[in-house]
Amino acid sequence: MDPISNGEIFIWELLGTAVLIILGAGVVANVVLRRSKGREGGWLLIAIGWGFAVFAGASIADPSGGHINPAVTLGQAIAGNTPWSVVPVYVVAQLIGAFLGAVIAWAAYKLQFDTHDDPKGTLGIFSTQPAVENRPWNTVTEVIGTFVLLMWILLSPGAEVGTGSVPVLGNSALGYAGVAFLVIGIGASLGGPTGYAINPARDLGPRIAYAVLPIRGKGSPEWGYSWVPVVGPLVGASLAALLYLALPI
Amino acid sequence: MDPISNGEIFIWELLGTAVLIILGAGVVANVVLRRSKGREGGWLLIAIGWGFAVFAGASIADPSGGHINPAVTLGQAIAGNTPWSVVPVYVVAQLIGAFLGAVIAWAAYKLQFDTHDDPKGTLGIFSTQPAVENRPWNTVTEVIGTFVLLMWILLSPGAEVGTGSVPVLGNSALGYAGVAFLVIGIGASLGGPTGYAINPARDLGPRIAYAVLPIRGKGSPEWGYSWVPVVGPLVGASLAALLYLALPI
Amino acid sequence: MDPISNGEIFIWELLGTAVLIILGAGVVANVVLRRSKGREGGWLLIAIGWGFAVFAGASIADPSGGHINPAVTLGQAIAGNTPWSVVPVYVVAQLIGAFLGAVIAWAAYKLQFDTHDDPKGTLGIFSTQPAVENRPWNTVTEVIGTFVLLMWILLSPGAEVGTGSVPVLGNSALGYAGVAFLVIGIGASLGGPTGYAINPARDLGPRIAYAVLPIRGKGSPEWGYSWVPVVGPLVGASLAALLYLALPI
Amino acid sequence: MDPISNGEIFIWELLGTAVLIILGAGVVANVVLRRSKGREGGWLLIAIGWGFAVFAGASIADPSGGHINPAVTLGQAIAGNTPWSVVPVYVVAQLIGAFLGAVIAWAAYKLQFDTHDDPKGTLGIFSTQPAVENRPWNTVTEVIGTFVLLMWILLSPGAEVGTGSVPVLGNSALGYAGVAFLVIGIGASLGGPTGYAINPARDLGPRIAYAVLPIRGKGSPEWGYSWVPVVGPLVGASLAALLYLALPI
Repeated sequence: MDPISNGEIFIWELLGTAVLIILGAGVVANVVLRRSKGREGGWLLIAIGWGFAVFAGASIADPSGGHINPAVTLGQAIAGNTPWSVVPVYVVAQLIGAFLGAVIAWAAYKLQFDTHDDPKGTLGIFSTQPAVENRPWNTVTEVIGTFVLLMWILLSPGAEVGTGSVPVLGNSALGYAGVAFLVIGIGASLGGPTGYAINPARDLGPRIAYAVLPIRGKGSPEWGYSWVPVVGPLVGASLAALLYLALPI
Repeated sequence: MDPISNGEIFIWELLGTAVLIILGAGVVANVVLRRSKGREGGWLLIAIGWGFAVFAGASIADPSGGHINPAVTLGQAIAGNTPWSVVPVYVVAQLIGAFLGAVIAWAAYKLQFDTHDDPKGTLGIFSTQPAVENRPWNTVTEVIGTFVLLMWILLSPGAEVGTGSVPVLGNSALGYAGVAFLVIGIGASLGGPTGYAINPARDLGPRIAYAVLPIRGKGSPEWGYSWVPVVGPLVGASLAALLYLALPI
Repeated sequence: MDPISNGEIFIWELLGTAVLIILGAGVVANVVLRRSKGREGGWLLIAIGWGFAVFAGASIADPSGGHINPAVTLGQAIAGNTPWSVVPVYVVAQLIGAFLGAVIAWAAYKLQFDTHDDPKGTLGIFSTQPAVENRPWNTVTEVIGTFVLLMWILLSPGAEVGTGSVPVLGNSALGYAGVAFLVIGIGASLGGPTGYAINPARDLGPRIAYAVLPIRGKGSPEWGYSWVPVVGPLVGASLAALLYLALPI
Repeated sequence: MDPISNGEIFIWELLGTAVLIILGAGVVANVVLRRSKGREGGWLLIAIGWGFAVFAGASIADPSGGHINPAVTLGQAIAGNTPWSVVPVYVVAQLIGAFLGAVIAWAAYKLQFDTHDDPKGTLGIFSTQPAVENRPWNTVTEVIGTFVLLMWILLSPGAEVGTGSVPVLGNSALGYAGVAFLVIGIGASLGGPTGYAINPARDLGPRIAYAVLPIRGKGSPEWGYSWVPVVGPLVGASLAALLYLALPI
């Protein structure tokens, strides 16, 4: 694969992360908001919605390696698959894309936000919140979830190390179905305690959107918790990449 | 891929769209009608039913590119992948196929329609209805859902631009699983406000069928709303195709 | 693909159909029987269980084309893909396999059958029953479901016509995932009225097993209805194969 | 495929089985523990969680053939695909990996374990328990489930017999999706009576972890039952491998 320019990385990662959040924030809105057709649709609906959100976003961002997640970019950089020099381009694009995706998801559910009967509780549509708050243990959960994600990305047999700047997971419309299945699995299995951010941009971008959007009667963006879904995924991805470098591959 | 004749386009799109609606209207009938085994099966059942309805219909319509959706045809024409001259053939076939599919789905559930206790509320089996009606915002939701659909179709790594008249998404029994996963995702994530038509033929053909079929005690076909699931998808597809043309591909 | 002997056809179809029914009867037992962990698991669990039952059974029967269904065998014979001379071998193997599979599924759930509080209602674990009984319309539903199944099998892009005696759908561990997705879709969408036999062996073999097994307090095998899930699928498959022959392929 | 060293087998099987149990024990914790977001998520959530746990674990253990299950290793040894000399390496690695995975899953759900209102009932998160206890019939159920698993692994068209020490199921990120679909199917269909261990390491490793971990108010590890999910799977795998050797392949 040929290296691509910084501008192309920026466009593809922004687009892919925006689609990730349109669908990801969308499925939580569908389940949470009282006047939505999918209300109380259950945890499996959320896990499948986020899984196929990753499928859609990563497929669209395929030219830049389909990272759409700063933890993936960091892990690939530590693993030697992505040059450190382009890491900031990835991360900035991912954060802007996540912010824009949250705005678009909010527009899709505008009427539901306007008629919801617990507007203070709408932060969970945008960003993760722990079921039981204890920041060190919440961080442990995010570390474990992201560690599993990166282990699979780095080690699964479809993970081809590109000859250019970024690695590619697949080269067909179905190439990203594997990561979708994995993310459905992580959501089903490790999402219970913290809502599985496993992606700093997925959490921080929409949290900023929640803070600035004119959402009727909204509550606090909970900045005090906001570092957990940033630090946990970055630590988990780093641990997976370091283990990857130590393995006999 | 060799160009195919207008007659072949007509046959494949009609067949594929008919199968799409047999299964798509069927799953809503299964969930809604009181004496059906899948009643109250939940939103995930509906999302998966429609997703695999697209899988079946698009696979069968593979020789004509598996459009089965006027918004896809319009987007592919704007993107330069489908000649404008065949667009009317696609759209007419899709509308007739959707109408026929709705008639067949009604026949499959004839006994359930005859014993349903709220026959006035059966329009939702055929066509989409908003959870909260506000036509401009309902249109926004349909624009966003169809924009995501076309972005994936135009940009995902499996989207091969055919050398003939139509592009092809895949060349195996699993080639259309990607679009099925995407449609499950759009249904899970963006279906809450309007029921995700994201396809003018999917909505208009069955609405006409609802108007003319001898359904016991049926209600209004709600013609006043019927333009939203036509205009929204066409606008969303156009925006996606225009963005596609502007991207550095 | 080389032709295979009648003995090999017999073995593979028997094994594949047995696995189909072990898993297919199993999922209904899991949802229906009071002291099973999956009780009241919902229609989607049943649809997914049967879909992956087809995946498992058809994969195992791959050397004989993965029919595991007399309606598929009839459709392929009419379509010219399977010689008429081997049709009886297929059908007899499928019926015996379905009977054996039902016996094994019953053994797996022996303790649940022994402690179920409505033993008269256990026929539905083995064979299909209509939600609203009206044999002509029940037949129509089975015709439509099987018509869709055969249209996809005959027309989907992965359907390769073998050069030997039987056609093959795929040549990888994932080759039969397409038919699994289709069957999940048919179950979700067209299973509501009759429980979607769409396969005479799937219904008749287990019905015979229900009649002869020592199930505690069991009810009637409902022989009066038993022709519907045999005739409906055979008619639906025939119509699909005749349409296939008339198409410009 | 080149033979790999005993050390490599040990590392890959340990890692893959650890990931299997992190996700597998995780999904049960998510459904069972009162203060988890997925509580009461239903049997399908559990079946899909375990299916994609196998997908993740087997993908990661691809260099050693993705066994992550002593019953698979035994079946492959009887079938002649894995040398008997490396069987102990596989099994020890799988047991240690399963133990470590259970410890990590417990850490991910630490706060939920600490606040659960029925701590005595938490064994089911780690190991299987019968719905109705009767050890001979419970063994029969485990034999049947594992027999189906091994039949598919040995016979499905993607099962390539490696030229080296271990067979390989696939060579892409999606190669293990087939086994995931199969395991979802076995869980949906045969999991009701005993919770489908179908893997001695999956049951015994976490049972030891349950015995030694400082879980608040925990109950008995039920050692009296613990041989059933070891013996049943080994017998089922042996029967499948013996049948495989007798088939005309």
